[in-house]
Formats: sequence, C-alpha cells, structure tokens
Amino acid sequence: MGLVVQKFGGSSVATIDKIKNVASRVISELDNGNQVVVVVSAMGDTTDDLIALAQKTGKDLSDREMDMLLTTGEQQSAALLALTLHNMGCPAISLTGWQSGIATDAIHTRARISEIKPDRIHQELAQGKVVVVAGYQGISPEGDLTTLGRGGSDTTAVALAAVLGADICDIYTDVAGVYTADPRIVKEASKLDVISYDEMLELASLGAVVLQPRAVEFAMHYNVTVQVRSSFSREKGTLVVEVGKMEQDRVVSGVAHDLNVAKVALFDVPDRPGIAQAVFKALADVGINVDMIVQAAMRDERNDIAFTIAKDDLPRALPVVERVCREIGASGTAYGEDLAKVSIVGAGMMSNPGVAAAMFETLANEGINIQMISTSEIKVSCIIEAAAIERAVKAIHARFNL
Amino acid sequence: MGLVVQKFGGSSVATIDKIKNVASRVISELDNGNQVVVVVSAMGDTTDDLIALAQKTGKDLSDREMDMLLTTGEQQSAALLALTLHNMGCPAISLTGWQSGIATDAIHTRARISEIKPDRIHQELAQGKVVVVAGYQGISPEGDLTTLGRGGSDTTAVALAAVLGADICDIYTDVAGVYTADPRIVKEASKLDVISYDEMLELASLGAVVLQPRAVEFAMHYNVTVQVRSSFSREKGTLVVEVGKMEQDRVVSGVAHDLNVAKVALFDVPDRPGIAQAVFKALADVGINVDMIVQAAMRDERNDIAFTIAKDDLPRALPVVERVCREIGASGTAYGEDLAKVSIVGAGMMSNPGVAAAMFETLANEGINIQMISTSEIKVSCIIEAAAIERAVKAIHARFNL
Repeated sequence: MGLVVQKFGGSSVATIDKIKNVASRVISELDNGNQVVVVVSAMGDTTDDLIALAQKTGKDLSDREMDMLLTTGEQQSAALLALTLHNMGCPAISLTGWQSGIATDAIHTRARISEIKPDRIHQELAQGKVVVVAGYQGISPEGDLTTLGRGGSDTTAVALAAVLGADICDIYTDVAGVYTADPRIVKEASKLDVISYDEMLELASLGAVVLQPRAVEFAMHYNVTVQVRSSFSREKGTLVVEVGKMEQDRVVSGVAHDLNVAKVALFDVPDRPGIAQAVFKALADVGINVDMIVQAAMRDERNDIAFTIAKDDLPRALPVVERVCREIGASGTAYGEDLAKVSIVGAGMMSNPGVAAAMFETLANEGINIQMISTSEIKVSCIIEAAAIERAVKAIHARFNL
Repeated sequence: MGLVVQKFGGSSVATIDKIKNVASRVISELDNGNQVVVVVSAMGDTTDDLIALAQKTGKDLSDREMDMLLTTGEQQSAALLALTLHNMGCPAISLTGWQSGIATDAIHTRARISEIKPDRIHQELAQGKVVVVAGYQGISPEGDLTTLGRGGSDTTAVALAAVLGADICDIYTDVAGVYTADPRIVKEASKLDVISYDEMLELASLGAVVLQPRAVEFAMHYNVTVQVRSSFSREKGTLVVEVGKMEQDRVVSGVAHDLNVAKVALFDVPDRPGIAQAVFKALADVGINVDMIVQAAMRDERNDIAFTIAKDDLPRALPVVERVCREIGASGTAYGEDLAKVSIVGAGMMSNPGVAAAMFETLANEGINIQMISTSEIKVSCIIEAAAIERAVKAIHARFNL
C-alpha cells in the first residue's frame, strides 16, 4: 500500500460539481490500493472576492488580519470535499493547516513552513480515512493563522508529501502538464513528459506559474517525485524529478515569460563596501524579493544599480528605495513598469555554449531591445518591453525547435 | 475604566457599510473610556449560503464537517471588522473561538462551552487593542472546531462578559429591545425597559428569539447585566437583570409565540418505572431537546405520553421514537407539525392567581382549541393550531393590557 498526496487548485474545486469530480479522482487512487492525503485551494475566485471585500474597508490592510480572512477559503473547500467524499461513501476528514501540524514563521501573507508535526494526519489515515488538508496556511509561533503566499497550496502538498514519505505528489491543475511555452501564446507548444527540479525551479521562478517555486525547492530538497497533471483528464502529466532520472538532456526545455515585472534603478551609488547590502537588506526587511540585479561601474568611483521586483511589490518598494537613496547618498532613482521577462531554461545549456547568443540574436532579428540580462547555469533571462513579449516567446520557441 | 462586551448579529454586519457602522459603535464605547471586546456573527446570509452549498454535496452532512465549514463565516466577519477598525485608526485584533480560549464539549453543531481561558484576550486588551472575537464557535477536547448552535454568538458574548468580569454585555440586534409581543404581529407591542433573567429565559425559550436561552442562563448564573438594543439607533434597549433589581413586578411582561413546534405522541405506554426515562434519554442521546411533556394515565395500567420538540428535529426524532416504541411495548406513535406555541411570561404571576384562567378564556372566546398546556411559576404555554397563532397573540396582548 502506497501513500499519495494530491493537490487540487482553485479552478478544480470552483463548484460542487467540480468537487465531485475531485472526489472521484480521490476514490480512484483509493481503488489503486493507496492511502490518500488531499490538499485543496479555495474555491474559484473566493480568495479574490475576499480581498475585494477587505479593500472596501479601506487602504490599511494588516497582513495578520488578511491571513485571518483568507484562510477561511481553504477551510471551506476542505470541509466541502470531505462532505462530498462522505456522500460518495468514502470516510474522510478535513483539517485546517494548524490541525495538520503545519507550523510557520510569523511573516504574514508570505509565511514559510518551519516544521510539520503530522500526528493527527497519521492518526486519521490509520483509521482508514482520506485526509483533506486546507492548503496555503499554517500557524505562527504566537498562535496566529498564517498564509504561504500565492500558490501556497502547492507548497503545502509537497511539504506534506516530504514529511509523510509519500510515493508521489500529484499536483492537479487546469493544464495537462508543463509545456515548452505557454500554449495560449505558442500554438506549437508541446507537453514535456519529464523535467528536472532545477529546470522546473527556473521555470516556476520565471513566471510559468504551474507550480510555486517554494514547492519545487521542497521537492528537490526532500527528493519528492512531483507530477503536474490535469484534473479534467486521466492522461499522464509531467513528472518533476532529479536530473539523473531523466533520459536525455535537452539543450533548451522551455520558454517562460513573466509580465509581473518592474525595474528600479539607483543612480550614482557610492562605490564602497556595504552599499548593495544596504539596498537589498532594506527591501528584504519588508519582505520584497529582488529578482535580477545589474550593477555597472560607470565613471569615477560611482556607479548605477538596477534591479527587478514583482510589479505587485512596487508600491511598497518605492518608499524604501527613496529612503535608502538618501541614506547612502545616491543621486536619484527611476523605475519602469511596462516590462516583461522572457527566459529559456534547459539543463543541457551547461554543456552547450552559444545558447545565450542564439537567444539574443533571435530578439535582435525581431527588433526587440534587451534592457537587462541575467543568466544562470541552466537559464538565460532578458527584460524587454511588455508589448513585445508575445512576439519574443514565439520567435524563441521556433528558434530552439521546441 | 470599564470593560464592555458588545455582540453584533448577522444583520448588523451584513455589508462593509454596516460593519463600518458597527466600528463606529465600538469607537463610541472607547471614547467613553472603556475597554471593548466585540463578538460578531457571520455576515448576513453567509451561514445559510454555506449550508445550501453543503446540501449540494448530498444528504449525509457530518456535524463535524458542518462545523468546520460554518465557523469560517464568523472568522471572516471578525477579520473584516478588525480591518475596518484599523482603517478608522483604532488598534484591533480578531481572534477565532479557539484563539480566544473557548473550550467546548465535542457535540458538534450544538456544543456547550466547558471552559474559557481568556489569556490571549487579556494580553491584547492590555496592549490597548479592541479584541474582535468570532462568535458561535469553540474547540473540542480533540482539537476539532465546534459551533454552539443557532444564536450561539449570544452565548459567546455573555460567557466572555462573565469570565472577563465585564460591566455590561450589549447585545446589538435589528430590534430596539425586548417587546411585550412580536411587533410584526401586534402593532401595539411596546418595548420593555427592564426584564428579569427568569422572564427573559422563558421568553427566549418560547420563541421570542432576541436572545439565545443558553446566553440568558450564563447571564443569570454569573450575574451578567445584559442589554438588548438596536445597532441602528442610539436609544437605550432592554436591560436584563436580577428580579430584585426591577422596580415593579408586572403580572404579565409579554406574549411570546413559536412556530417551530412539532408534537409527538406514544400510545399505551406501559405504566412502570423507567419508561419516561427510556423515551427521553434516547432523544437526549441524539441531542434533541424536548420542550413540553404531557403524560396522562388513561385506562388500565397504560397511558399516553405526548411531548413537543423543535420542528427541525422531527426527522431525526422519528426513527428514535419508533425504535423506543417497539422496545418498551407501546401500541403506536403519532405526530403533528402544523402547530404553534403561544405563551405569557411574567414574574408577577407567582403572586397573582387566575392569570392562566384568563389566558384560556381569551383563547376560548376566539374559538381556538388548546391541544397541550404547560405551566411554570412565571409562564403559561399553550399549543394551538399554527393558523390561529396571529389571532391568539393579538387577543392575549389586548387582554393583559400590554
């Protein structure tokens, strides 16, 4: 007898009819002789609706209270799935994040899991029940409800799969798996049968939002086999595994793009140790993730620093950046919003020089200007104007024969 | 500096605009120099909407999962009130039932508070915050979420007022106080300035649903001064106090009626000790409250037992009654649903004979047949046909010059 963790996203549990479909997928897994833990997101637009309601109260939206509000969405869908399973003759119990033993830090709206004590889950599984866990949430050391950020239910599922020693963590979503590019933009995009954790991590970080990056980190760290698959078809999805388990190394596995990009620049930053630290620590202190960073020594002993963050974070970042600008004696700031990031990812890049050059050439042939470049061993990312993103993705997808 | 507990029902928090009105009532109390704990119900029809959603999953609605589902409603309104208070410049924090330290037994959907450990509430009050508590809920010894039954937020408020030693517990509702009869039926009904716990308990038990009976029991037991008042006007409401604090004893304080009544009869019950216990223990075991009980020795050594329960409980009661009927050797059962209860309540009845007779005479003059009668020291209740209830209430209200 194996143990399977299944995760169903908001669109998969948007109505009671869809929840019945989810219940039948759960029961199929039981019929295969497995124990099942199911992690669910909030129904359809519930989270957005609750946020809209909160915004009507005013502009001051305390993170702690937002977590209190938003955790109800997953609690509701978990209870409704348990009720549906009962009505299909299947013993089941729903648990909140804290009932499942999911402890986090106290950084509300983007908490990180610190520990999982799955005693209650083990106990309920031992009684032959399906355990339905409300995703996206945990409890802080102070006993407050926390959420894990957008896509946090993925992290809940993978973390539970790791701590329970599950055989597989199936992430059910509204697409059939991980594609070589966004199928809504590139018609020729094809589904990948398998992808490495590293590639998935780059893709997830780069805006191909089938799986939350932290979920992939957990999977990689604890070596959890993850499958991204459709909740509306029975076909196999994309397996996310160690690179050693893959049959061949593709040079480029996929093209990702991200429209949630803003650029911030600091001009004439003094050239002395501790300056970068001053800038980026101030942003980290308010919980803002910085993505790409470019520093260029220009003239004298001064230089410019530019970096990108999620566009959502820009309103919170600007006052911090202005303050740091004054403190370190930089000459000014600038920012840009109508931007996008296009990236290629592939574990085979490491041993194939010239991949980055081919990407730059493709963009140049399309007349698209590159504003920033960032590379890692298995990816190349370029910041371009948002209006050109579709053309860029199509051209790059064609160039690498994906 | 005093401490005030305020409770706002579902209609008082039905929209964000109404929640803003609630917040201004909270702030008025702070301006009076008091500390404030606020207990809220779920917004408007939220609970009913969630029940309707659950019913779509099928007929098997596990009480434990229903509690998991329904507790989200109060958690949402508590968070939204805290956010609204923040936006009005008032420090506030929302707490779930379990975060407020409200422990209950494990009888889901109708749990009873067993203990309150208000450490967290004290801690937050000491930091100058308004504490917003999600009403209607607690936590079982197993760590599961429980609800206190319809109107349970009243009980949350009064129990917190008792344990916190509050100066007053203000129950804000959509009526201005306790009336001599339902103003929707009797235009001449007038608001009472003061009423005793005993009278309120009888009225609450009898279908005048301004206050949950268990809330009144708590208030009486811990001597909490309760005020029933309107959330939409600033006028004083009705104070619920010890009988000794009332200025005069009215003979009859009010007329109450209840349409949620079903009658069950067991025929030819053997006349031996332990029979009544067998019937009523079986009902108690499934959590059904029996209201009026009439037992009449008829012929031989056999007699009939008739009793009333809430109409909502009838589907659950019938199989139990049928089983007990067979077990004790009764000859058969019958039940009736189109019934109503009309009652008069008054602490002055004890010293004024003839009140019951006057009520029976009034009903007789109206040509209304009395099916069952039950009396206590301070009330007289009659079961009549449902269709006659409006006429009965009006006639009785006029008869006693209320």
